[in-house]
Amino acid sequence: MSVLIAASRREAVSVTPVWFMRQAGRSLPEYHALRAGLPMLQVCQTPDLITEITLQPVRRHHVDAAILFSDIVLPLKTIGIDVEIKPGVGPVIGSPIRRSADVDKLRALTSEDVPYITEAVTELTKQLGDIPLIGFAGAPFTLASYLIEGGPSRDYARTKALMHSEPGTWHALCGRLADIAAEFLRVQIAAGARVVQLFDSWAGVLSEAEYRAYVQPHSARVLRACGELGVPRIHFGVGTGELLEPMASAGADVVGVDWRVPLDEASARIGPDYAVQGNLDPAVLLASETVVASEVARVLRQGRVAPGHIFNLGHGVLPQTDPGVLTRVVELVHSYSTESAAELVQHQRGGA
Amino acid sequence: MSVLIAASRREAVSVTPVWFMRQAGRSLPEYHALRAGLPMLQVCQTPDLITEITLQPVRRHHVDAAILFSDIVLPLKTIGIDVEIKPGVGPVIGSPIRRSADVDKLRALTSEDVPYITEAVTELTKQLGDIPLIGFAGAPFTLASYLIEGGPSRDYARTKALMHSEPGTWHALCGRLADIAAEFLRVQIAAGARVVQLFDSWAGVLSEAEYRAYVQPHSARVLRACGELGVPRIHFGVGTGELLEPMASAGADVVGVDWRVPLDEASARIGPDYAVQGNLDPAVLLASETVVASEVARVLRQGRVAPGHIFNLGHGVLPQTDPGVLTRVVELVHSYSTESAAELVQHQRGGA
Repeated sequence: MSVLIAASRREAVSVTPVWFMRQAGRSLPEYHALRAGLPMLQVCQTPDLITEITLQPVRRHHVDAAILFSDIVLPLKTIGIDVEIKPGVGPVIGSPIRRSADVDKLRALTSEDVPYITEAVTELTKQLGDIPLIGFAGAPFTLASYLIEGGPSRDYARTKALMHSEPGTWHALCGRLADIAAEFLRVQIAAGARVVQLFDSWAGVLSEAEYRAYVQPHSARVLRACGELGVPRIHFGVGTGELLEPMASAGADVVGVDWRVPLDEASARIGPDYAVQGNLDPAVLLASETVVASEVARVLRQGRVAPGHIFNLGHGVLPQTDPGVLTRVVELVHSYSTESAAELVQHQRGGA
Repeated sequence: MSVLIAASRREAVSVTPVWFMRQAGRSLPEYHALRAGLPMLQVCQTPDLITEITLQPVRRHHVDAAILFSDIVLPLKTIGIDVEIKPGVGPVIGSPIRRSADVDKLRALTSEDVPYITEAVTELTKQLGDIPLIGFAGAPFTLASYLIEGGPSRDYARTKALMHSEPGTWHALCGRLADIAAEFLRVQIAAGARVVQLFDSWAGVLSEAEYRAYVQPHSARVLRACGELGVPRIHFGVGTGELLEPMASAGADVVGVDWRVPLDEASARIGPDYAVQGNLDPAVLLASETVVASEVARVLRQGRVAPGHIFNLGHGVLPQTDPGVLTRVVELVHSYSTESAAELVQHQRGGA
């Protein structure tokens, strides 16, 4: 039985499961060697590359889960949206969606649009054995923000203006994006993904009132669709201290938390029906070994208060991270048994 | 008596005072006409331009306060740091500060370094009459982040790594920045500024534990220095929902709140000893007139719960904002008497 799946169901585990958002990819030299200048979205459509890149961090770090190497905008590309990932920038949309008529550009996704996903996930689950593969998709709000802004944004001004001024257009757009995300996850689950994570990376720019009115119903639809297929659902965003409860009640099993809210406090905000995931600040991995060990122990200690804890970072691995530090964090997390809280207080084994 | 100063002291006011962060500058056509291609930091060193740009929004919008037109990195430029404001980017530092020895580059600021500030503030307070001028400075953390990263950052990884790994260097750096900020504010107060705002714009990237250990003592020193001179102190940052209490107890009279935390909730977090400032989402100003009116009423209604409320945005005016909308917001805020809560619930006058 996978410790990650057990923890996500709030069952007892002997060690805390650990994986890292963005564990596959840019922090690993073997990834750069393999990718060798290919455009990101081309890599994400090539089964052998997806499979190999997804496996690299599992081999290297001995994490408790693999996460499919892909990108949240891939499904949009697949249904004909003009989108590229520009290095150092992020997704850039050729013709942003800002009017009711634009919404029709978003046709439904089917499994035939993403045969490489089915192929890669099937091969991955074979190779991974007992280690679960996490499927993933971008949540409607975060996808909508890229489509409306035309790329990454500092203020999400067009997105919020559309949301408030044209709620009909907004809900039509997010409804389609929810269907696309749900189908993208269904394909992954059908091919063997045993857990899913819904990334609403930028939801933290919203107030709770905005989140509940304009976002939660659409994310809930995606999460419900996965729930019907019986897989645990992780729901994650950055800077979501004010949104943890509605992100949980949207239909999550596990709520991802960034480093701003301690896990004991996060668990208090969402109550006993949810596990938590997080929340070491990725920037801390650039600090000294002593600091890393002490911070790992603190996160574990605070995570013990929750009814289930999956150790992770509070956001993705930074590209400049020394992969050796990630390996060491996995060893450290696994070195603490979940039964002995005392050693965490003393950080004794943390410095070993 | 200024309503802004009264509200900041939690005294009764007949209308809610209102001003906007970044009310001077980029959203106004008369600003672009006046600035005409001059580099930002040159404008900030020219008394006539500072004065005129500071006054423009007061004339146009009838706000209840002026805020000195300057930039938080100006004091750094003045003491010899190689810094420029790149359009579309922000402050860029020629030689970032990353070692203990680099800290010595930061010499103390004196009033003789900024004669144009004394001149502009003196002239401004003469012209403004009863309308108070808000002096301002960048807080040690936000200034340190620019110096360490070399410019704006997405993850503040170097800043956090230095903070955790070399606390001695960190505290030495922030100690000097606190002295610089305090002196920059003292100059403005001596010349007539009647309120100050300390901008810790990016403090919200920190956890509460980090803020308390590495940031609060330095900001407290700046705020204490201003408190000794008898002016009300506003303390502001973005995404600071977890930091409101330590930002208040650092020595603020008024805590600036962004749009993520409703003002009634913010006031509950900091208690009855502080006024609040905020917190209309600047992106909402791009939405329809009806939405703006309804959101203004909501912010006022939630602000009534606090023992003092200064209406403002949750962050600076976006450059693409229609200045006519800002004027209309001032009229709206002033149209509600602070005694009649019922009209706010109905938004009746909001749509008028």
